[in-house]
Amino acid sequence: MPQTEPIIYPEIKVPSRILLGPGPSMADPRVLKAMSTPLVGHLDPEFVKVMDGIQELLRYVFQTENALTLPVSGTGTAAMEAAVANLIEPGDAVLVCVNGYFGRRIAEMAERYGAQVEIITRPWGEIFSAEEVDAALKARPAQIVAIVHAETSTGALQPLDEISRVVHQYGALFVVDAVTSLGGLPVRVDETGIDVCYSGAQKCLSATPGASPITFGPRAVEKIDARKTVVANWYLDMSLLKNYWGGQPRTYHHTAPISAYYGLYEALRLAAEEGLENRWARHRKNAEMLWQGIEELGLSMHVPLENRIPSLTTVRIPKDVDDLSIRKALLSEYNIEISGGFAELAGRVWRIGLMGYSSRAENVLLLLAALKKLLE
Amino acid sequence: MPQTEPIIYPEIKVPSRILLGPGPSMADPRVLKAMSTPLVGHLDPEFVKVMDGIQELLRYVFQTENALTLPVSGTGTAAMEAAVANLIEPGDAVLVCVNGYFGRRIAEMAERYGAQVEIITRPWGEIFSAEEVDAALKARPAQIVAIVHAETSTGALQPLDEISRVVHQYGALFVVDAVTSLGGLPVRVDETGIDVCYSGAQKCLSATPGASPITFGPRAVEKIDARKTVVANWYLDMSLLKNYWGGQPRTYHHTAPISAYYGLYEALRLAAEEGLENRWARHRKNAEMLWQGIEELGLSMHVPLENRIPSLTTVRIPKDVDDLSIRKALLSEYNIEISGGFAELAGRVWRIGLMGYSSRAENVLLLLAALKKLLE
Repeated sequence: MPQTEPIIYPEIKVPSRILLGPGPSMADPRVLKAMSTPLVGHLDPEFVKVMDGIQELLRYVFQTENALTLPVSGTGTAAMEAAVANLIEPGDAVLVCVNGYFGRRIAEMAERYGAQVEIITRPWGEIFSAEEVDAALKARPAQIVAIVHAETSTGALQPLDEISRVVHQYGALFVVDAVTSLGGLPVRVDETGIDVCYSGAQKCLSATPGASPITFGPRAVEKIDARKTVVANWYLDMSLLKNYWGGQPRTYHHTAPISAYYGLYEALRLAAEEGLENRWARHRKNAEMLWQGIEELGLSMHVPLENRIPSLTTVRIPKDVDDLSIRKALLSEYNIEISGGFAELAGRVWRIGLMGYSSRAENVLLLLAALKKLLE
Repeated sequence: MPQTEPIIYPEIKVPSRILLGPGPSMADPRVLKAMSTPLVGHLDPEFVKVMDGIQELLRYVFQTENALTLPVSGTGTAAMEAAVANLIEPGDAVLVCVNGYFGRRIAEMAERYGAQVEIITRPWGEIFSAEEVDAALKARPAQIVAIVHAETSTGALQPLDEISRVVHQYGALFVVDAVTSLGGLPVRVDETGIDVCYSGAQKCLSATPGASPITFGPRAVEKIDARKTVVANWYLDMSLLKNYWGGQPRTYHHTAPISAYYGLYEALRLAAEEGLENRWARHRKNAEMLWQGIEELGLSMHVPLENRIPSLTTVRIPKDVDDLSIRKALLSEYNIEISGGFAELAGRVWRIGLMGYSSRAENVLLLLAALKKLLE
């Protein structure tokens, strides 16, 4: 439209949605208020205090003392790429455990950064045993092992402690995707021995997407410091970014997404106020209420009880029910967003998220009532 | 801090700054209000309308009809990296014109993506002639030529039309960094024949940083479509992203920074309401008022009048004046942020931005009065 005259455009008008899909979750009103805080410069001494607060609070939610703990200036996928790009040098052997969409994405990224990628797989909805990882590393050593803690695409929760021990027995680094778990269920970076852990802001932390938590432990930092090649990705290069996040003096790398940091700070403050134990318990309690209600509707979960993610439930769609028409009716009649499955679970499951501010008894009750009405 | 008990943390409290540095500029209150709009899903049909509006309005501010026009999910540097990563294949010959910090950054990024980079240089504050580009391309052909339109690090405005003609005579693609110009001074992508142009949201558009405009013309799209290698950067890979921004159906790539899109939409709506011609005239008028006032204070500009950027002025710091103490006093006494120079201009210039919502006569008047008082 090469014209330069004034044009009148309509105001943003989006409906009030009840977000019960795989993310974004609903942001707490306090987070939305923080997002409208006027800007200050990204090197303003008062902004540096916000950054310090974010780092300290991220250490709390990650349960870590890692110095290199910060939000990446992008959404969860950027945090994944920051982990992959910084840790991997061309030729590195990387083992990726793939039992869903996001494991596959890690493998794809690792290949782009020149890794020799080996994958082990499980059907979507199942989890890996430590023995499987052990066997894979015995057959072919790797410098890095990556796994998804809570697979948003399947609803399966991966236990980490045993696998972490195996990974370190082989001297490898352990990378964990905690996008859908951080802030909603126990993630204990130091206790579990995770070397790199990352997440998103818009899941169980209920900030708005755009600044994504990541933490690097001492072994990971050592590998990064010893790199022989430069990180291909400039925007996410930790060797440069760390000077903005902790250098004396702090030096400019790229302009920070200031408002997203305001929102993340407030979301983390809310998590700290509630306390992690209480927050984990709330997510668990509301998930159990959902699971019971789903069963009472005569439906079943895709993942067995012992492996279910409290923040993301996959519900099997009955054969005689049309996936899309139910989801469309939920959205248009009740403003409720849930999501379908994708790839091999497309049309087979619904994905229901109870994350952060969205994890509320009233939301569970409403969704169950709406589903009951629509399935009748 | 591995403890899980509740912790009480203080609320965000940042001072009301008058942002007259190289960015971020002040966001219009309407943009801040838009940032606090409740979230909807990134594939919600109502959100898709916001995305459509952003694309249409970006075409207006870029003065282009390019289909592949969208905001990248990161700050301006991510948009720069999107241009570089998608366009360049390993081994490509790339000519970068470096007369400041951001030209250098393009060259560094291009090298990381495997380009054979050749640079031509000019001192910081000067500009390139079409003859220089011609000579460089004659000496060594290149597939891509990159230049910065408005060098934020120096205050020099680079004329583009002649160079664009030269670049295309040699069959190369023309990449232009319009981070500090878009929305504040004429950028005419189609008329000038720019193949890839990118910007930031927090400069003359006065949105908050986190979603950054980029546009790819037909020749650029052709080069991307003909790639023999995959783009190393997954997050910014246009071959995947274009399906989210225009696919039928739109397919998920990564979660969009939803609030940043709300803010960008509102900022673009404001630009359209004002009209580009009016907006360019306002930036020019306020810059001229600043330049006159600076001269009346007995100071001088680093860049000659004919090459000055209206949105970013570099003022030479007199020999007997301490850079940092003046800037600190402006900030602590009057809440005014301006910026120092960096690299070879460190300590030698101040950088004063009059961008977007910050470009107001009252801000110019106040800054001049404050400088007068502090320099007395």
